[in-house]
This record gives sequence, C-alpha cells and structure tokens, in this order.
Amino acid sequence: MIFRTDLALEQREALSGTEAHGILTGERTVNGVRISTVTVRNQTGAAALKKPIGKYVTLELPSMMTSAKAAEPLQALLCETLLSMLPKTGCILVAGLGNVQITPDALGPKCAALIFATRHISGELSASLGLGTLRPVAAIAPGVLGQTGVETAELLCALTARLSPAALIVIDALAARRLERVGTTVQLTDSGIAPGSGVGNRRFEISRRTVGVPVIAVGVPTVVDAATMAGDLLTENETAPENARRMMVTPKEIDLLIEHAAQTVAMGINRALQPTLSAEDLLLLIK
Amino acid sequence: MIFRTDLALEQREALSGTEAHGILTGERTVNGVRISTVTVRNQTGAAALKKPIGKYVTLELPSMMTSAKAAEPLQALLCETLLSMLPKTGCILVAGLGNVQITPDALGPKCAALIFATRHISGELSASLGLGTLRPVAAIAPGVLGQTGVETAELLCALTARLSPAALIVIDALAARRLERVGTTVQLTDSGIAPGSGVGNRRFEISRRTVGVPVIAVGVPTVVDAATMAGDLLTENETAPENARRMMVTPKEIDLLIEHAAQTVAMGINRALQPTLSAEDLLLLIK
Amino acid sequence: MIFRTDLALEQREALSGTEAHGILTGERTVNGVRISTVTVRNQTGAAALKKPIGKYVTLELPSMMTSAKAAEPLQALLCETLLSMLPKTGCILVAGLGNVQITPDALGPKCAALIFATRHISGELSASLGLGTLRPVAAIAPGVLGQTGVETAELLCALTARLSPAALIVIDALAARRLERVGTTVQLTDSGIAPGSGVGNRRFEISRRTVGVPVIAVGVPTVVDAATMAGDLLTENETAPENARRMMVTPKEIDLLIEHAAQTVAMGINRALQPTLSAEDLLLLIK
Amino acid sequence: MIFRTDLALEQREALSGTEAHGILTGERTVNGVRISTVTVRNQTGAAALKKPIGKYVTLELPSMMTSAKAAEPLQALLCETLLSMLPKTGCILVAGLGNVQITPDALGPKCAALIFATRHISGELSASLGLGTLRPVAAIAPGVLGQTGVETAELLCALTARLSPAALIVIDALAARRLERVGTTVQLTDSGIAPGSGVGNRRFEISRRTVGVPVIAVGVPTVVDAATMAGDLLTENETAPENARRMMVTPKEIDLLIEHAAQTVAMGINRALQPTLSAEDLLLLIK
Repeated sequence: MIFRTDLALEQREALSGTEAHGILTGERTVNGVRISTVTVRNQTGAAALKKPIGKYVTLELPSMMTSAKAAEPLQALLCETLLSMLPKTGCILVAGLGNVQITPDALGPKCAALIFATRHISGELSASLGLGTLRPVAAIAPGVLGQTGVETAELLCALTARLSPAALIVIDALAARRLERVGTTVQLTDSGIAPGSGVGNRRFEISRRTVGVPVIAVGVPTVVDAATMAGDLLTENETAPENARRMMVTPKEIDLLIEHAAQTVAMGINRALQPTLSAEDLLLLIK
Repeated sequence: MIFRTDLALEQREALSGTEAHGILTGERTVNGVRISTVTVRNQTGAAALKKPIGKYVTLELPSMMTSAKAAEPLQALLCETLLSMLPKTGCILVAGLGNVQITPDALGPKCAALIFATRHISGELSASLGLGTLRPVAAIAPGVLGQTGVETAELLCALTARLSPAALIVIDALAARRLERVGTTVQLTDSGIAPGSGVGNRRFEISRRTVGVPVIAVGVPTVVDAATMAGDLLTENETAPENARRMMVTPKEIDLLIEHAAQTVAMGINRALQPTLSAEDLLLLIK
Repeated sequence: MIFRTDLALEQREALSGTEAHGILTGERTVNGVRISTVTVRNQTGAAALKKPIGKYVTLELPSMMTSAKAAEPLQALLCETLLSMLPKTGCILVAGLGNVQITPDALGPKCAALIFATRHISGELSASLGLGTLRPVAAIAPGVLGQTGVETAELLCALTARLSPAALIVIDALAARRLERVGTTVQLTDSGIAPGSGVGNRRFEISRRTVGVPVIAVGVPTVVDAATMAGDLLTENETAPENARRMMVTPKEIDLLIEHAAQTVAMGINRALQPTLSAEDLLLLIK
Repeated sequence: MIFRTDLALEQREALSGTEAHGILTGERTVNGVRISTVTVRNQTGAAALKKPIGKYVTLELPSMMTSAKAAEPLQALLCETLLSMLPKTGCILVAGLGNVQITPDALGPKCAALIFATRHISGELSASLGLGTLRPVAAIAPGVLGQTGVETAELLCALTARLSPAALIVIDALAARRLERVGTTVQLTDSGIAPGSGVGNRRFEISRRTVGVPVIAVGVPTVVDAATMAGDLLTENETAPENARRMMVTPKEIDLLIEHAAQTVAMGINRALQPTLSAEDLLLLIK
C-alpha cells in the first residue's frame, strides 16, 4: 500500500512495531498542544523513515487553526522550537515557497508577506522609531518553477551566496496522510526541504548541503492526496480510482485556514526573530 | 449507502435497472460534448430521483474546463440549451450564488461579474456605441447568509418583485458524486434551486413557485464530498472517517478551474442573451 | 470657481463670512479627534450649503487612518455618534456602496464584508455561543450600476420593503476638496446620500424619503478631484487642464488606507450595533 | 520650478529651445502610435537631460490603454522596439519591479506574472506540445525593499550571476509630468533603471554597469506627483501645498488601466521573445 505524507510523524506511525534503529521519538503536551519529536540519527533511520537525518518537531492542535484565539499557544511553541534550532545571532533569510494563486499551496507566499523584514532598517532609524535593536531579517517569496522558469533552490542558492545569512527558514504547505492533521499541525525540522515534498512537489533539495547555511523548514499540512485517502480506505486487492491522482482533499474552509495558518506561522517566526518586541507591536508592524 | 450529488444525471445513474415511472432520459454527443437529458414528469419521478419536476440537461466535456479552447463547444451548447429554456423577450435577472471568498463556492459571484449587464443602457447610448438593440439584463451576486444575514431567496424575491424580469437565471457551484465530473460538466435545469443544494447548501428553494418568474439554474460541479467519496470506496459494513464530513475533494488546479468555468458559463449566458453581438465583442465588453 | 466636495464641513467653509440663515455649526476636540457639527435646519440653509436638511458630524484625525492605534479614538467616537442617530432597537440594514474593483471606491464593499451580520442567528444559537442577545443586523454590498444594471437605490428600496429594518446605514467613499482631509476624516449624517455624491457619483437619492426608513450615511473621503485641486491653485482667469477631469488625487498609500478605513468604520458600526460585545470579541467574529 | 518625470521625452521637452549638445531626437507616427526617440550620446547630454547615456524610445497612444483593441498596434511596436534592443539569442531574465499591493506600483509584478517562462521547458517537452523551439525565458517579481529587506538591485545581481542571461528586461511603473501621458505611453530604454526612478523610487541603479549584462527597461507612467502637477499650475512665487508631497494623481480607472497595461506590455515582450508563436497561442499559454 502506497501513501504520501510530508510529516515525519506519519512516516513514523507507519513503521512496524519494532522500532527502527537510528530513530528516537518523544511526546509531551503543553497548553493543549501535543508536541511529538522524531529524531533521525543515521542513514539506517533515514532509510527506514524515508526522511533525511535531522530533528522533526510536530505541534498538533486539537482543532483547526481557524481562530486567532486557538492558535496563540501554538504560536508560542512555534517560537520556542524555532529558537532551539536557530543560530543565536546574525541575519535570517525567510523564504515562503509555493504558488500564491493555488489556495492550498499559498501558505508560503502569504506567510512571507507577514514576516517583519528589517535588514534594511538602520540602527538609527530603528532607535528613532522606538524599536530598539532589531535582528536583521529578509523575507522573500520566490514563486514556482512553472511561472518563473527558475528553480526555488537555484534562487535561494544565489540569494544566500549574496546575503550570507546565518540561517535560512523555508515555509511550505505540506501533504498529510490523515485528514485530522490538515490545518491543525505544524512541523519544524532542521533538515530542510527534501525533493518531492510540499503541496507543489518541489523538485530540488534545499538544505545546508545545497545552500551552504543551516536550513529550518516550517510546514503546515493543507491537503491529503485523494489517492492516499482512497488507498487508506481500500483493501489490498482494490485500487484507487484513476482520477484520484489529480484530486486533493481539503477542509471546506481552506481559504480561511490558509489565512489563519499564515498569520500563526508568521507571528511565531516574528516573535522568535525579534524577541524584544511584543506580539502586539509586531502585529501593527506587519500590517 | 448514502452519497451526495446535485446532478440529476448521477441520481438517475443510481436508480435500479428498471426505469422509474415519470422519468425520461436521452443522450447524444455533439462536437465531443456528451448531452444527457433527464426529464422528471411527475411526483412519482420526483420522489424516485429526489429532484423536483423539470428538465435537467447535463453537458459533459471529455476533459477539465481549464483551457479556453476546450470550452468553446461547451459554450455554444450552453447558449443553445439556455435559449430553449428562456422566454424569447424581456429583461433577464442573473444571480451568481455563493461565497467569493471560498474558492470552490466562488463560481457564482465570479460568473455574475462577467455577465454583460445592459438594463441601464438606453437605446440611444447602445445605438451610438454601435451595439444595436440590447436585451435588458441585470446581474447580481447576493452573497451568502453567513456574511449578509439575508437569505439568497429573500433577496431574489425582493428584487424580482421590483424589477419584474421575464426570468431569473441562477448560477451555482455544485457537488458531484463522481470525481470525473468535477470541472468537466455543466447542468442546466428549468426547475430552479432545491433546498440543500450547491457547495454552500443553500437553505431555501429558488423556483417559479417561490419567486414568481421562471427560474433557470446553471451549475458546475466543483467538489465531491469527502464522505461521499469515502462511502463509495467502502463496503456496506464500513463507515467513513468522522473527519471526512468537513472535508471536500477538489482538483489540484481548483483556482484555475473556477476562473475558466466562470468565463465559460458567463460567455454561454452572454451569447444567449445578446445574440446580435459576436463572442469577440462580448469578451471586450465584459472586461 | 467651481469645486467638488461631499463634506458639509467644506461647503460650510466656502460660505462667506456672514453666516447663512438656517445653518448651525459647532466644534470640539475629544482625544485628539476634532468633531465638527453642521446642522442644516431649513431650505434656506440647504440652498446655501447645497446639502439636504439634516445633521452632519465630521470627525477629523490629525493623521492618516493607516494604523490601528491611531484609529482607536476615532472608532469610539464613530460608535458614539452613530448611537445618537440610530433608533434604539430593531433590525439594522448596512449597505456598503461602491465598486470593489476600483481601489478608492472600494471602501463601502470592504466595510460591508467586515460587518457582523446577525439577523440569521437565532437566540438559542447566540446564547449557546456565549454571545448573549444580539441586535439583528444585515449587511450587503449592492455593487454598482455599470456592473449590475440595477441602481443601488432600487435594490435598497426592494430590500428595505422586504426586511423592514428600523434604519439603513449606507457607507460610501467620498470626494473632499482639501488634500489633508483624505483618509483622515469620517462624516456621519442623518440625511442619507444625495444624488451625485460619492467617488462613484451615485445617481439617485437614498434617504428616508426614498426608502421609507431613517438613513444614516457614513463616509470617508478617499480622493480629491484633480480638477478641484487644479481649480483651487489657479487664479480666476485660468482654467484647469482638460485631462484633469478624468484624474483623481489620492494618497500614495491608498490601498493601505482603504483597508484601515474599512476596518475602522466597520468596527465603529459593529460596536454601536452590538454594545454588549467587546471590541476584541467583535474582531474575532468578523474574521 | 521643480518637477518630477521618469520620461526622457518630458525632460527633453523642458530643455530650452537651443538643442543641448549630445542629444539626438526623432519622431514618427505608425498606426496611430507616436514614436519619439531621444538618444543621449555623451556626458554633456546626460547632464542636460538628467538621464544616463542611452536610447529612449517612447510610444504614445492617442487614448488610455484600457481596451485590448486600442492596445494592439502598441503591442506590435513594443515587440519591434524590443527586438532592436535585445541580443538575438540566449536566455532572457524578465523582472517586474514594484509592490503588487499598491495599485499604481503593481504594473511590474502583474506583468511578470503574464510572461511566458520557458527556461525550465526541455526541447522534448516543447516539441511534444507542438511549440517548436522556445527561447529560454525566466520571469520574476523581486518585491520591494520595505517588504523584503532586500534591494531589488541586490537580488537581480545575485540572480544574474547565477543564471547568466544574455540580457535583463526590467518592467516598472513610472511617474510622468503630463496627465495626458499617464496610461497612454510606454518608454523603452537600453540604459536600465536610474536611482530614484519608478513609482516606488527604486534606490539603486540597475544597468549593465551594475548587473553585468545588458538591461532593457520598459515602463508605463501610471501617476503624476501631486506636487509636480501643483508646481506646473502655480507661478514662480507660489508654493505647492505641503500635503501634495504624499499624494499622487492617477486616472479614475487606475485599477483597470494597470490590468490592461500589464497585459499589453507582457504580450509585447512575449511576442518579441517567442517570435515563432502566434499572439493567440501566447495568450492561451500565459493564462
């Protein structure tokens, strides 16, 4: 049986009872948010999980991220997890991957538009605005290959070479296997983006190996492949309908979900990058 | 086994082999478009088909309506079918139902925005623009109950009483049972809108009985209920996942599909309402 | 010298020194907001001011409404002024006039989309959501004649006849004479909308006389006619450039201004209509 | 008297009667489009015109670019002029400058979205789609400094170093001095973008000198500075109103104008870059 997921947690759940060598897992709950950690320690673990070596942290809400209130504890944990993965100082480049014209793939670009970019704000200006010392941040939405003719990985390599950031944060919409994880879950990983992942099936790896700086990937599942859902419902001898391959399963309120998830992820990142500013000030600054 | 569909054709397919009394069916293919007709002649037929008495014409393309080229024969047949259902003269009110902020429900409002409204154009102005005599047309997007506090049926009753059109055309996004009909099919019917139909589950009947003038409904299936798809894959003793009820299955290119389907349906209607204008002129007039 | 303004305050400023009979004026400042009142008491005053009989309250901020913080006192005064003009009980119909596709004319429709519509929420539902007793509110965006073929006044008459609201609130983008009033000012009046006013030059009167219920108009100037600005700069013997007639003067940040002004006006109205809910709860309810 | 314009033609018009050394001018009319050429041959000319050395071609329509029909001859001349400036072979990078959220500055990004990107389409794929041999084209919208923290010039340098295109085409919205040139004019130049030009006052030079490859700039004036218009109306001893500095003068139909101008410029570029494809095929490919 074949299914598709971008969540390390779901790959882990599909492994048989006996734990694969090289995979460590942990779980706890904070303020109603379930935090699961999957650490892939070596190539044996990577082969078993079909995920690169690295740490994968999944934050799960009990319900959809469609209200500002429900998402607040998630925002705080997102900030905290990011801080544990990021270098303490230096410029951060944030890239929102995906196609803004395809709703479930628009998370990245919408999120990038809500990141507080500060790299161009001089210390004097920042002080005169009462903002104190700001960490330099750049934020871009590189678009998608079909519309630009440029691989996302190519553009990020070029820009990273030019800006020399301390790290790169990439935001992307993901595919999950389980319906209940769509719009309720955030995955953070220090392993970057693997080929073929994301709603748009990004083609090239974006990682420390390819861009030369640490890459933290932040993703929210926004779809389930219709073929994956069909496959999960069928017995071994049945096959999914042919048309399912070009279909996806999304929440009925997907447009609202994308708006709220972009806001939640962006604010989690903004809080991690500018710890001296209050959430309220950050909200005013990004509008 | 329970499934949901707004297509009379799919209700008809689900009926057992022996034809129900009071239902007539026909089928032919023109320029690659399959035309199926289901006529519900009496209450026996209506009860069997769970659809009001009336004529239902379904136009099916072999592929998605995502290119202008493929949709041209569909546009022509849409125009022809509409002309067979509409009164020959008099003002036509066109209403695009649905929520413009929810992609698969946005067909109606997007379509209404592309209808060539002419009711306010005087004969002199029309003549001076070289447009000849225009049929009076009004076009509105009434919004949805959750955002306006006004039932679509209420607003249409009020407006119909005021404008006294010869007929009302309502456009709505539909739910289909079969994945292959999403984005490839248009249904036209002279029975109006039944309660609970459309992607947004409109609550009230919109028909000659309720608004006082003939009502032609034009719909394009844009989703399959995830619960319906799950139900179709499962055997009798299995049940669909609980979360499926708040999910829908759509094509991956749903945003593009909605743009193209709105354009196709709007142009089919424009051509039927202004037969003296060329398709090219209509395209320039609605932009 | 001819100029165009939709603000009673600016018409009043242009009157010669000796006060016209039938016009009363007042002014005070609250929390940094200048509140000017012009009351047109009879036809002599109406003829002098070229505005219908009624009360016109203008709220002026010292700076553009482009930050949430600056607009808060304005929101509170807007709420207070509205409460003084509205009937104490009964359903309120809110209509956002204008064309959502023309940025400086989009204030009305954008504002209507942010009104908390409650007319369809039953007392039981409201109680179960912890919202207490809600005043019934309907909110629509009727579109513009050029796109719908229906006069705004016609649609509002039809809907008012059907819904029998206690009052109608119409929101519209206005033209000012002075650059400094664009985006810094809100005008409220109990005289409704006069023919030829608004950015879109609405053609018909919308007032108690025409729709049969009290009409409160709320407007924000978003443009200055280029011909008006030119006229103000020129001496009596000069004439404005011909092309100025099809041009308008707007702030460079007009897109941002419209978003913020729509939010400010909508929240002022929401607070006046649902006084039992906090501003914070209202913000969550309209998203 | 100080005024602002990004058009070499308007700088030239402001020069006194005796022709400056180092500036050549020419003019002709083709299919109703007035073609003016200003060539700055040396530093004397550059100092007089306040424009870098290079060739500036201005195409002027008799009326606004708000209908597809009127813009067709413009499209053809744009294509022809571009072909005279571009290298005959090699990859072309197209960059749409500006802020998509500010209507009169959105020309560049909207145009970039309509460029047919082909760099990623292999010869086999192209042949199998019946498109023949395509010139490699990449198309991006780099965003604006205030939102990304990255200078447009920085990003274009980085990307040009990576992709090694034969030339760079930059598209930008311009400020004109004369109202009648807004929305009716296209300027093409082989001198790139000078500091301080464009609606957004881009800060850095983008030219062969800075990015290392030929840079063709294509611009459409979408605004007049309100201070420039005021200055032109006033006598020498008067001063423009203070508020005029943060205002701009635009056509009332600016939103429509931007859509049409983006389409016209994009199609002119597409036709120049893919001369083997028909305009009709290109239209279908970019949607």
